Amino acid sequence: MTSPLLVAMPGNERLAMELAEAVGFELGGLETRQFPDGETYLRFVTTPKGRSVAIICTLAHPNEKILPLIFSAATARELGASKVGLISPYLAYMRQDRRFKPGEAVTSRQVAHLLSDAFDWLITVDPHLHRYGSLSEIYRIPTRVVHAAPLISQWVKSKVTNPLIIGPDSESEQWVAAVAKDAGAPFSVLEKVRRGDRDVEIKLKNLDAWTGRTPVLVDDIISTGRTMIEAVRLLKSHGWAPPVCIAVHGLFADNSDVFLAQLGAQVVTSNSVPHGTNDIGVGKMLAGALSEFSTISS
Amino acid sequence: MTSPLLVAMPGNERLAMELAEAVGFELGGLETRQFPDGETYLRFVTTPKGRSVAIICTLAHPNEKILPLIFSAATARELGASKVGLISPYLAYMRQDRRFKPGEAVTSRQVAHLLSDAFDWLITVDPHLHRYGSLSEIYRIPTRVVHAAPLISQWVKSKVTNPLIIGPDSESEQWVAAVAKDAGAPFSVLEKVRRGDRDVEIKLKNLDAWTGRTPVLVDDIISTGRTMIEAVRLLKSHGWAPPVCIAVHGLFADNSDVFLAQLGAQVVTSNSVPHGTNDIGVGKMLAGALSEFSTISS
Repeated sequence: MTSPLLVAMPGNERLAMELAEAVGFELGGLETRQFPDGETYLRFVTTPKGRSVAIICTLAHPNEKILPLIFSAATARELGASKVGLISPYLAYMRQDRRFKPGEAVTSRQVAHLLSDAFDWLITVDPHLHRYGSLSEIYRIPTRVVHAAPLISQWVKSKVTNPLIIGPDSESEQWVAAVAKDAGAPFSVLEKVRRGDRDVEIKLKNLDAWTGRTPVLVDDIISTGRTMIEAVRLLKSHGWAPPVCIAVHGLFADNSDVFLAQLGAQVVTSNSVPHGTNDIGVGKMLAGALSEFSTISS
Repeated sequence: MTSPLLVAMPGNERLAMELAEAVGFELGGLETRQFPDGETYLRFVTTPKGRSVAIICTLAHPNEKILPLIFSAATARELGASKVGLISPYLAYMRQDRRFKPGEAVTSRQVAHLLSDAFDWLITVDPHLHRYGSLSEIYRIPTRVVHAAPLISQWVKSKVTNPLIIGPDSESEQWVAAVAKDAGAPFSVLEKVRRGDRDVEIKLKNLDAWTGRTPVLVDDIISTGRTMIEAVRLLKSHGWAPPVCIAVHGLFADNSDVFLAQLGAQVVTSNSVPHGTNDIGVGKMLAGALSEFSTISS
């Protein structure tokens, strides 16, 4: 039987190479370019005929990526792929998870619908599940979730002396506690009041017991980074050492990476979204999920 | 019975107002914005419940537009719309209409599939049908096509003295002949050899019989405008007056509008894609198609 084919959408080549090697998939060639009018040209250079195909595409800035991604999946199928799956290290559109005001689009469901139509299975890293208990509430296809928490713990343990883990809000407490436990560190969480997309007020709990430790702020996503930026400012104003800021997914909207660096924070992210701050590799865990996911070959 | 609702995607407000007034549809409010991370927020301000909904969205630069458009259609349905149709004055992705090389995505079919899933009907202006005989070959929903040729003839008749209509290639001869006939003008077509997306060689036929007329170059689309630009240069080098360049759809990739203007050509387009060169209004014809399209209310 021919081995499964792994195909990278533009910008995902590095992780694709790592994954293909780890799991013994063939790395397939995909030719893509933009026509002068902005339309996408796409061609499978390696034929997917009769093969299981995994397409890797992280979905930061999803609007311009999802259409070409759907083209790839549909083309693989037309060319005779037996199965077509999606590895999306960062899965977008998880935050609009209910109609907060009448008339709103619940885009998380709509994107899940489109991707469930296009793909047979999905693997992702720490999706932003807030009001959903699991991806199966909105995705109709088998899904596997890779958890980066152990990787964060490992990173902290090996790189930070005397860490104090600080989570973004009380809702994240369980996740933060697990990260801290594995890192052998104490933890706290911020008190957070969100007033809008870009307006978040936060407060520090009493951290006197851990004076002298290096604060390590952890979150699943840094987008505008308002929480992180405010937390770094607060910690500095209370005389703490410049913190380390760790996120699974570094989206860095509004130049938040620059602001954090200017405040003296060390920013670290996983490579779920390619960025200069990537220092935590999710490749091995994704490879594990790929190998164990029986849906792919069945 | 409540009147149908017309809703404009961003950038389509002007034509939407004109259309709503012409056909007696209510112009509905749609709130859209981008979250800091690039995701789209979308909300129907006017409820589509129990109503027939027409969404207007021209599709120049389609990649970032199609996802929000699909969100709108899905949301209208979730909110109880009885039917949801699409008015797309410029319909994108019509050019990749077969697999020219093995492995290529036939994106025209894939986009047709997505839009046929999302909408109940489609109205558009002069889609770029090349190898397809009609939209029904790829769209599974009822479609209506508005033809701008009579509007071009009218414009030429009222604005150009002694015109000579020149079409882009022999394949367009029938269309060009019809435009010329209605404008009461003679016509010719260019001889065209396409070598790539941006590389087109053209030749003029013998035009001696019409010396002294104003050349009027017509085409369905100006994208990179290579054909038009070369034709303008050729005509000028043969001593002709600066030509008028007319297209139904002005996409103007690679600043072709600027190049044409620099060569002294007068550029005129329909308002299917909003642009400073718009001088041919398709609103009335779209309104006619909307009024006569029984699918909408049935």
